Amino acid sequence: MADHLAVLNMPIEALQRSHTVTSFEPFTLLSALSVVTEKIGLVATASTTFDEPYHVARRFASLDHLSSGRAAWNIVTTANPESAKNFGLEEHVDHAERYKRAREFYEVVTGLWDSFADDAFASRSQESGIYFDPSKLHVLDHKGDNLRVRGPLNIARPVQGWPVIVQAGQSEPGKQLAAETAEAVFCSPKDINAAKELYEDIKGRAEQYGRNRDHLKILPAALVIVGDTVQQAKEKRLKLDSLVHYDSAIASLSIALGSDASGFDPDAPLPEDIPDTNASKTGRAGVIKLAKDEGLTVRQLAQRYGGYAGLAFVGTPQSIADEMEEWLDKGAADGFTITFPFIPEGIDDVTQKLVPELQKRGLFRTEYEGTTLREHLGLPRPNNRFFS
Amino acid sequence: MADHLAVLNMPIEALQRSHTVTSFEPFTLLSALSVVTEKIGLVATASTTFDEPYHVARRFASLDHLSSGRAAWNIVTTANPESAKNFGLEEHVDHAERYKRAREFYEVVTGLWDSFADDAFASRSQESGIYFDPSKLHVLDHKGDNLRVRGPLNIARPVQGWPVIVQAGQSEPGKQLAAETAEAVFCSPKDINAAKELYEDIKGRAEQYGRNRDHLKILPAALVIVGDTVQQAKEKRLKLDSLVHYDSAIASLSIALGSDASGFDPDAPLPEDIPDTNASKTGRAGVIKLAKDEGLTVRQLAQRYGGYAGLAFVGTPQSIADEMEEWLDKGAADGFTITFPFIPEGIDDVTQKLVPELQKRGLFRTEYEGTTLREHLGLPRPNNRFFS
Repeated sequence: MADHLAVLNMPIEALQRSHTVTSFEPFTLLSALSVVTEKIGLVATASTTFDEPYHVARRFASLDHLSSGRAAWNIVTTANPESAKNFGLEEHVDHAERYKRAREFYEVVTGLWDSFADDAFASRSQESGIYFDPSKLHVLDHKGDNLRVRGPLNIARPVQGWPVIVQAGQSEPGKQLAAETAEAVFCSPKDINAAKELYEDIKGRAEQYGRNRDHLKILPAALVIVGDTVQQAKEKRLKLDSLVHYDSAIASLSIALGSDASGFDPDAPLPEDIPDTNASKTGRAGVIKLAKDEGLTVRQLAQRYGGYAGLAFVGTPQSIADEMEEWLDKGAADGFTITFPFIPEGIDDVTQKLVPELQKRGLFRTEYEGTTLREHLGLPRPNNRFFS
Repeated sequence: MADHLAVLNMPIEALQRSHTVTSFEPFTLLSALSVVTEKIGLVATASTTFDEPYHVARRFASLDHLSSGRAAWNIVTTANPESAKNFGLEEHVDHAERYKRAREFYEVVTGLWDSFADDAFASRSQESGIYFDPSKLHVLDHKGDNLRVRGPLNIARPVQGWPVIVQAGQSEPGKQLAAETAEAVFCSPKDINAAKELYEDIKGRAEQYGRNRDHLKILPAALVIVGDTVQQAKEKRLKLDSLVHYDSAIASLSIALGSDASGFDPDAPLPEDIPDTNASKTGRAGVIKLAKDEGLTVRQLAQRYGGYAGLAFVGTPQSIADEMEEWLDKGAADGFTITFPFIPEGIDDVTQKLVPELQKRGLFRTEYEGTTLREHLGLPRPNNRFFS
């Protein structure tokens, strides 16, 4: 679940068309969903820029207990400059500083999750009145450059040990953070070659930190549109794109660029002199590349971003399975983060048409192999760093 | 739902017997409960000392939407000195400063809840592509002594306008905060005379602020133990008290005092020279008063606190209804916050035995009169301060 800590900064003509102005706060919504679902993972975005590690560690631990081990943390820095103003700051925190704090924040949160040994409560007994074994409680006492947090956390170790760590930034420090910390990477490579490069880059870096490359799953976002024929699927996509209002489209382009694009000439190419900002650098570079690669006008580019500008598999169950198999075989992905074009039909197309084809090829499980999100993703349960 | 932002500071012999070392984070637990319950109110404690108003406003708004209008905010300052160390501070924030920040925090949170007019989304239309009316969005732009928060909040106005404001502090600044802001007061008066005094005090102060005294409900905490005879109920209470382990008892006394009581002579009176701390002043004064009033030893006092030291109605449904009626008639309470001695029997005793007796006397509704917590409590829905 993506998240923003502000109403996004857009021209009012675009803002009034944007559903992003109102959304549930992730922990409340995912906690509600935890008790009415049994299998799905619950990935909450939580910012390391404008929150406290004690709060974040606690909420994830709580969600992991409520969901019997299905929580995951999409660890982000907050790039939207408007957010700073909602948290007492006039100037936005610098990109590099945000990532330094994020790295330390991660150390503190995971350290807090390890406050109790897994068996700290095993000795609980009505007879003795003992609730837990104090020798199995660790006081973190972290004192770092950005954070001072004593601990211990006031909740038992999460069911998964740690909720799964998910990361999505693709800037240089973003990839570095992923290599050091992430267990699943949500990314948006443009094509299979870009994906292979990213895959090797992040896994290579992870190995330099002594990590097992299989314990870091690269899961590109992929829009899946299924038709009875490839032609029918393509027509479905064209229909969907045509429904995007231009005002929304140009707003999406503004967000992707981190700059207001509403003054650009819609029928000219993207201007060369877009002002630099502290917002996400990766997104911005991607827009400029897409515009150049495909020679799009501002209008065409905006309509692409107003719809879905990332990786898309558009075809029959067989053609899509072929493409996915190629990505998996060639070391471009360990799986995909499926984006449904609309619901419920988009979900049904995947579960009822695409998944059976993937199962036939041995590319998808036929039964759940465990109960936690970690187990669904084939990730090991982390040891407690303070207790063996 | 009470809350702590730390593992409470107790001697290890007591800590190992304390269930408080692990608990769900309130917003996650109450959100989970919101989708499996229909009528109960969901009162989350949220600290104004170590959190940000933007986060707090958002989570409550989200919980209020998820629960269709059953959220309430127990607004607190964080008194536990150990908490400061989990949020980067070595010294605890001073009592008076905490209340100043709390008052401003309340202004910001309620202002953020009013970011959107109630009908801001009424014009939403597939045809026009318009999602909301931008003239019905207000930017708070708060700049105060303690907080700078721009807004607007990125979620629609709560179902209840504002979640119900609950307050529990009984120190001088605590009562002041209640008078200015609270719609329900959770309190622990020792007896009906103390309750009448508190009732008049808080309602009198509220009227000085131009508030309607009926829009502030005084709801003392009351342990209810029901028996077939008064004698049987009293025996039930004695049995329950006898089950409290002395190590837990002394720990509870330490918390109530804000000082480690484990070194005190168990069979002597409470020492005169207990060191002063920044922890809750009201609790401390209450302990000292109870010890003096009833001439209790440290052991007796500890066992009372290890069980339940507050107001208790112990008797038959008739005798308890008599007592409650007296409290309501004499202006000591608008209702009660029932504390169940154990579950499920304690709840069943109230719902199946006490409530019918109260209904017979016209003291309790026989049907729900609305759907929101505000409606259950007979509280008006707040107007939006920025939109009429």
